[in-house]
Amino acid sequence: MLVNGRWSETLPASDRGLQYGDGLFETLAVVHGRPALWDAHMARLQAGCRRLGITMPDAGTLSEEAESLARACRAGVLKVVVTRGSGGRGYAPPSDAEPTRLLSLHPYPDYPPSHWRDGVAVRVCRQRLGSQPALAGLKHLNRLEQVMARAEWDDPEIAEGLMLSQNGEVVEGTMSNLFVVSGGAAVTPPLEDAGVAGVMRGLVMERLRESGVAVREQRLNLSAVAGADEAFLTNSVIGVWPVRAFEGASMGAPIHAHRVLRELVAEGLVPAEETGP
Amino acid sequence: MLVNGRWSETLPASDRGLQYGDGLFETLAVVHGRPALWDAHMARLQAGCRRLGITMPDAGTLSEEAESLARACRAGVLKVVVTRGSGGRGYAPPSDAEPTRLLSLHPYPDYPPSHWRDGVAVRVCRQRLGSQPALAGLKHLNRLEQVMARAEWDDPEIAEGLMLSQNGEVVEGTMSNLFVVSGGAAVTPPLEDAGVAGVMRGLVMERLRESGVAVREQRLNLSAVAGADEAFLTNSVIGVWPVRAFEGASMGAPIHAHRVLRELVAEGLVPAEETGP
Repeated sequence: MLVNGRWSETLPASDRGLQYGDGLFETLAVVHGRPALWDAHMARLQAGCRRLGITMPDAGTLSEEAESLARACRAGVLKVVVTRGSGGRGYAPPSDAEPTRLLSLHPYPDYPPSHWRDGVAVRVCRQRLGSQPALAGLKHLNRLEQVMARAEWDDPEIAEGLMLSQNGEVVEGTMSNLFVVSGGAAVTPPLEDAGVAGVMRGLVMERLRESGVAVREQRLNLSAVAGADEAFLTNSVIGVWPVRAFEGASMGAPIHAHRVLRELVAEGLVPAEETGP
Repeated sequence: MLVNGRWSETLPASDRGLQYGDGLFETLAVVHGRPALWDAHMARLQAGCRRLGITMPDAGTLSEEAESLARACRAGVLKVVVTRGSGGRGYAPPSDAEPTRLLSLHPYPDYPPSHWRDGVAVRVCRQRLGSQPALAGLKHLNRLEQVMARAEWDDPEIAEGLMLSQNGEVVEGTMSNLFVVSGGAAVTPPLEDAGVAGVMRGLVMERLRESGVAVREQRLNLSAVAGADEAFLTNSVIGVWPVRAFEGASMGAPIHAHRVLRELVAEGLVPAEETGP
C-alpha cells in the first residue's frame, strides 16, 4: 500500500478519515497494467474534494503512484482513498490540514463468470439510504448504510441488494448502480438525495445513448424494476452484470447489458478473461 | 495512544473504521484521573456494537486501558474508538473480524469560562441530518454531516450550530444535545431518526426529573427554541452550556442549566476549575 507516496501498511490513528469518515475514495479496475477510466475517476475525486473542502492531491503524483502499483497487474482492483488528513479533535476541519492519500492494489474479485454471462440474483435491502443532498453522488467514506445493508444476507447465490430511499424509491445497489430497460428506453434513478454517481454509470449512459437508446434519470419504484424488460447493475470493477432474478422472479434477456459489456471488454475497461461472456 | 493495548500512533490502513467508517466512538471527560461516567459510556458502546454487529471488546481490558491513560490527568478528554477491525475489500462485514480498539487522551479544550458562566451563542446550520432510523442514536464513525455543518462558520463567538432533520425540526447541535425549558418543563428532541443519544443528555434528563422538572422528548421547531424561557446544550466533555444567544437574539437566564451544572461539578463529572461558574 502506498501512503502519501511511501510503502506502508499503516496510517496515523489521528487521521480524520478514521475519526469521522472525512474523506473520499475511488475503486478502479486494473486491466493489463492500466487503471481503467483513470481520468473519469480523478474528475469525480476532484469534484468530491471540492464539495467537502478537501485539498485535492497533486494529479500527476496520484497518476504516477497508480501506474507504479498497476504496472505489473493483469487484472485487479486499485483503490484510491483521499482523506482530509490528521488534525483537530472536533469536527471543525483544520484550515491547514494536509490530505492523506492511500493507494492499494487488490486481486480481481473471484466472482463466477456466470455473473456476467447469465446475470445475478438481486434482493431488496431493509436498510434504507438517508436523504443527504449535500453528500449525494459522492463516494465518501461514510458507508455504514452500505455495510448494514450488505450484512442483511449471506446467501452466496444473491450477488447484490437494492437500497431504497426514505420514501421507498429504488436508488442503487449496495456497491453498484441500477439500470432498467422498458420498451427500448433505459432508466436509472436520479442521485440528488442519496447514492453514488458511479463512473461506470456515467459511461454506460453514454454508451447506451451512442447506440440510439434513450436514457432517462427517473424515479423508480420496486414494481417498475420487477416489471422491466431488462435490468442490469454497473460499477467500475464489474462493468455490467445483468439481473437474472429480482426478488426470486426471472428478468428478461440481457440484450443491452451484454452489448454494453462487450464494448467495455473490447475497450479494455474491464478484464476480458474474468468478465467476457 | 493505545491501539489494541499497545502504544502506537498508527493503525492498519485496511481498518474498516477508515475504509467505511465502520465503527463507534465515545468521548469522555477525565476528572482527577477518572474517566467520568465510564459505565454509561460503556453501556452505550455495547449497545452500538450490538446494533452494528461488531464484537464488543472485553470490558475489563477497556477499563484497565482507560484507567492507565487517565490516571495522571487532572482534566482532559478520553476518546475510545472501536471499529470492526480489518478485513475484506467490500462492504460485507467479515465474520471473523477482530475489533480494533483505540484509546487516546487529549487536553481538556480551552473553551473560555464564560461558555459555562454566561452561556454561548448558537446558530442554525444549513447542513441537515439525514433520516437513518437504523443508525440513529449511535455515536458511529460516519460523521461527515457534522464535519460539513461545523465547516459552515469560523466565527469564534459562535460556539455551536443546531442541525435540523430533513423536515426542518431541530435534532441536536453538531457536538451536543439540546434542551429547552418552557413554562417550567424541559424538552429535548427525540432521536429515533437522527442524532446521537448523548450520555450527558441521559444524565441531565435524570437530574432534571429528580429535581421535579418534567422532561419530555418532543419534536421541536426553530420558533419553539427561540421562544423558550431557557435553552442549554449538553455533552460529556462540557457538561452543560447555557445558550446565551440564539441566532443573534438573547435567551432567558440559565436557571436550570446552572443548577444541573453545579451538580455535575460537585459530583466530579466535569472538571471544576475549567467549568465552575
